[in-house]
Amino acid sequence: MDYQNILTLGKETRVLSSIQQLLEWDQETYMPKGGSDFRSEQLELISSKIHREKTSEPFKIALSKLIDLESGEIKNPSLDDRKKAALREWRRDFLQNIKLPNDFVKECAKTTSQAVHIWIKARNENNFSLFAPHLEKIIALMRKKADLLGFEAHPYDPLIDLYEPGITTENLISLFSTLKPLLKELAIKYANEPNPNHSFIQGNFNEKDQLEFNHFILEKMGMDFSFSRLDHSAHPFCLGIHPHDVRITTTTSTSDLMVSLGAILHEGGHALYELGLPVEELGSPLSEYTSIGIHESQSRLWETFIGLSFPFWQFALPHLQKKFPELGGITLPTFYKGINHVHPSFIRIHADEVTYVLHIILRFEIELEFITGKLSVYDLPDLWNAKMKEYLGIVPQTDSEGCLQDIHWATGLFGYFPTYALGTIYAGQIFDSIHHTFPNWKERIAAGDPLFIKQFLFENIYRFGRQYSPAELIKKMSGQDISPIPYMNYLKEKFISSN
Amino acid sequence: MDYQNILTLGKETRVLSSIQQLLEWDQETYMPKGGSDFRSEQLELISSKIHREKTSEPFKIALSKLIDLESGEIKNPSLDDRKKAALREWRRDFLQNIKLPNDFVKECAKTTSQAVHIWIKARNENNFSLFAPHLEKIIALMRKKADLLGFEAHPYDPLIDLYEPGITTENLISLFSTLKPLLKELAIKYANEPNPNHSFIQGNFNEKDQLEFNHFILEKMGMDFSFSRLDHSAHPFCLGIHPHDVRITTTTSTSDLMVSLGAILHEGGHALYELGLPVEELGSPLSEYTSIGIHESQSRLWETFIGLSFPFWQFALPHLQKKFPELGGITLPTFYKGINHVHPSFIRIHADEVTYVLHIILRFEIELEFITGKLSVYDLPDLWNAKMKEYLGIVPQTDSEGCLQDIHWATGLFGYFPTYALGTIYAGQIFDSIHHTFPNWKERIAAGDPLFIKQFLFENIYRFGRQYSPAELIKKMSGQDISPIPYMNYLKEKFISSN
Repeated sequence: MDYQNILTLGKETRVLSSIQQLLEWDQETYMPKGGSDFRSEQLELISSKIHREKTSEPFKIALSKLIDLESGEIKNPSLDDRKKAALREWRRDFLQNIKLPNDFVKECAKTTSQAVHIWIKARNENNFSLFAPHLEKIIALMRKKADLLGFEAHPYDPLIDLYEPGITTENLISLFSTLKPLLKELAIKYANEPNPNHSFIQGNFNEKDQLEFNHFILEKMGMDFSFSRLDHSAHPFCLGIHPHDVRITTTTSTSDLMVSLGAILHEGGHALYELGLPVEELGSPLSEYTSIGIHESQSRLWETFIGLSFPFWQFALPHLQKKFPELGGITLPTFYKGINHVHPSFIRIHADEVTYVLHIILRFEIELEFITGKLSVYDLPDLWNAKMKEYLGIVPQTDSEGCLQDIHWATGLFGYFPTYALGTIYAGQIFDSIHHTFPNWKERIAAGDPLFIKQFLFENIYRFGRQYSPAELIKKMSGQDISPIPYMNYLKEKFISSN
Repeated sequence: MDYQNILTLGKETRVLSSIQQLLEWDQETYMPKGGSDFRSEQLELISSKIHREKTSEPFKIALSKLIDLESGEIKNPSLDDRKKAALREWRRDFLQNIKLPNDFVKECAKTTSQAVHIWIKARNENNFSLFAPHLEKIIALMRKKADLLGFEAHPYDPLIDLYEPGITTENLISLFSTLKPLLKELAIKYANEPNPNHSFIQGNFNEKDQLEFNHFILEKMGMDFSFSRLDHSAHPFCLGIHPHDVRITTTTSTSDLMVSLGAILHEGGHALYELGLPVEELGSPLSEYTSIGIHESQSRLWETFIGLSFPFWQFALPHLQKKFPELGGITLPTFYKGINHVHPSFIRIHADEVTYVLHIILRFEIELEFITGKLSVYDLPDLWNAKMKEYLGIVPQTDSEGCLQDIHWATGLFGYFPTYALGTIYAGQIFDSIHHTFPNWKERIAAGDPLFIKQFLFENIYRFGRQYSPAELIKKMSGQDISPIPYMNYLKEKFISSN
C-alpha cells in the first residue's frame, strides 16, 4: 500500500535520527573526552545520511503518489484525518529540506563551527570585537537562508517557521507588544523592592541526596524509568531517542538547591511529552513533537506554573526537609516566597519567571534588526545595553554578561529564541485549561498526586504528535487563539494581588 | 588516488561499525530496559547498512583497481608492504562477505534469535529437549555456511577461518593433542588434592571500593581514561568504538573479590589492544585487530600470566589491603596460593587456568562431530558428560550445568570456541617472549611499574593491526611457530615444580 511505503521510508530515517540522538546523549554524558573528534565524524556521517534520505528520489516518488507536492492536494480523499495530516507534514518537511542546497548547509556548518570556538574565547576574554566578524558572516548566511526558504511578508518569517510552524513575525510583534508593558512594570517594581529571604537555598547539599530527591519528584510527575533515565551533564537537556527510551540530564550544584530541582522539573516536562508521543506511528510526523514552542510549554509548565506553585511545595517541602534536615526550620510561606523572588538580572538562563520573557523579547527585537539588515554587528553591544536598561532597568558591566552570553547566534539559531517566550505563553493557556478542567487542582497537587496533569497533557497534546499546528492544538484544547492573556493574568495574580 | 578511494569507502563503513559498537555498549550499560525492542531495530538497520557497503558495487570497483579479486595479485607493485597487506585483507573480507547471500544471513539471524530465547528457557528449566530441535536447525545452517564459504580439507576450516584467519582444523587437532595429556594429568592431580585456603576472597566487599581499586589497577596497566572508561554490566566486555574511545565493563560481586578483579584485568588487556591500534589508518584493516584469538591472548595474558603471578601481588596486595583492611592478616604466599587454587568445575567461565582449556577442547571436539554430521543433537548430553568425566574427572548433575551452559551455539557461533584456547596458547608464547626480553620482569612488576609490558605489546602486536596473520605475528615476535610448549612449560613450572 502506498501509505505503507512512505511510512517504511520514514521509519528508516527515524531510526537513523534516533541513533543521532544517542550519539549526542553519550557525547554529553559518558564519552571519554578524547573521543570528541571522532564523535564529530560519526555525527556528520549520520546527519548526511539522514539529509540524503529525507531528500531522496525514492522518498519524493513515494510521497508524490499520495499528495501533490505543488498544490498540497491529497490524492486519496478517503484517507483518515490523521494520515492526511501526516502527508501534509511530510510534504512540508520535504519542501523545506530541498530548498537548502547541500553546499549551503555545509557552509553554514563550517562557519558556525568556527564561530562557536571564537565565541567561547570572546566570552571568556570579554572581547566582542573577536566575535563580531563571525557574527556578521552568520547573519549574511541567515539572510540568504531566508531567501532560499522564501517568504512573502517578512524575511524573518521562514526562520521562525523552521521551529514554530505557522507563527509569523507579525504574530510575535503583536503578542509581545501586549505582554511588554506588564512585564516591564513588574520588573521595575521588583527591582526596587527588597528581596525576600532565600538564603536557605544556598548551602552545601549532598549530590546523591539531590539525585534521589530528583528521582522521587520525577516519579511523582509520572515519569516511568522503565522507559527513561536521568544522568548528569554540564548543561541539562532531554533527548527522545524513542517513546520507549527518553533520556534527561540534570546538573547538580552542591551550593544551590534549586539549580537541579528547576532542571529536573523542566527536563521532566520535556521527557513526559517524548514518552507520550504515539509510538505506533513511528516514522510518520504523527509520532513527532509538534513544535519547539509546544515542547518548551511542557517544560515551562512543570518548572514554573506547577513547580513554583504553593500547592506543589505543600506536598514536596516535607519530603525535601526529610532529605535535607538543615531546611527543617523553614516554613512553607518562607520557602515559597524565597524560591519565587523576582529580581532583574543579566543572564537569561538564571532569570525568574517574570523577567525571563523580557530577555527573549530583547533578543527577538535585535534579530529582526539583523535579518532586515538595519543593524550593524558593531552596534550590537550598545543596542543590547540600551534595551536592558529600558526593559529591566539594569545595564551589564561587560559584554560577556551582555550580548555574548548565549551560544545561539554562534550556532546559527536565528528565529529560535521566540520559541522560549511562546512556550511560556502556551504554558499559561495550558495551565488555565487545567485550572478550569480540574477546579480542585490545588488540593490534588498538595495531596501529592499530580498524575492528572500528565493525563490531561496526554489527552490534549502528546497523543496528537504533529497532527495539529501549535495554534490548532491550543485552540482545540482551550477554544482560544494563541494569547498571552492567561499568562498575564497568572502573573498578576501571583505577583501583584497576593503580594 | 586509488588507494585513497578505497580508504574513504572503508572509513565510512568503519564509522558505521563504531556506531553499532556504541549501540551495543549502551544496550548493556545504561539503556532503559523498555528500549530493548527498538534497540534491536536500530542494530538491524545499522548492520544491514554495513553489510550493504561492504559488498557494494562501488566498493568492488574501487578494490578491483588495486588488487585482482580472482588471483589476489596486487596491481601496483610499488605500494608499500602495509598497503599491500591492507589490500589483501580487504579482498579477504570482501570475498567472504559476498559468499553469504542476504537471505541466508537473515535466516541465520531469525533462527538464532528464536534459539536464544528458547535456550534461556531450556537452561532455566534444565530441559535440553526444548533446545534440541533449535540446535539441530542451527547445525544444519552452519553446515550450509561451511558449504557456502567453501573448503578443501575440512568443513570446519571455513568456520574457524572467520574468527582466526589461517588456522585450520588440522592445526587445532595437533595443538590440542599435544596439550591434552598434561592438562588432564594436572586436572586429575588437583581434583584429588585438598584446596588451599581461599576463604578470604569471599566476604562482603563494598562495590565503590572495588571500582576504585579497579581504576587504580587499570591505570597501572597503562589504560588512559581520557580515551576509555569503565562501567558496570551483567557480563563484562570490551568494545573498541575507536582507538580514542574504548569502553570496558566489569561486574562486581560483593561476596567474591576476584570476580571483578579478574574481569578488569581481562577486559583491560582487550582495551589496551584497542587503544593501541593505529588510529591514523582508520578505515583500513590496518587499524583493526588481527583475530579473535590474538585479542583473547591480550586478555588472558593480563588476567592469568600476569594478574595471577606472584610479583604482581607483591606490588598489588598492600594496595588491596589498604582498600579492604579485612584482608590485613593475609600473607602474600597465602593470598597467592588462594587465588591460584586449581579445582575442576562444571562451568567454563569459572574455570581456573589449568582446566579452562580442557573445557574448550571438549567443545571443539563436539563441534567437529556436529559439523561433519556424525553426532545427533539428541546424543549431545551423554557425549558431553562422558568427556567431562574423561577430561576433568567430574560429571555435571544437570544439563544446565553441562551442555546448556554456554550461549554460543544458540547464537550460531561455531568455530569460535577454539579462539579461547588459542588465546591462551598465544599468551603463553607472548609471556615467554616478555620473559626473555626483560629478564628482570619480576622485579619491575613487583615494583609496581608494569608499563613496559604495554610498550612490548604495542611494539609486537598492537601497532600492526591486521598487517600480519596470527601465525605471522607470533613468528615475528618469538621466532617460533604457534606452539603450546611455552604455555605447557609455564603450567609445569607454576603447578608442578613449585608445588
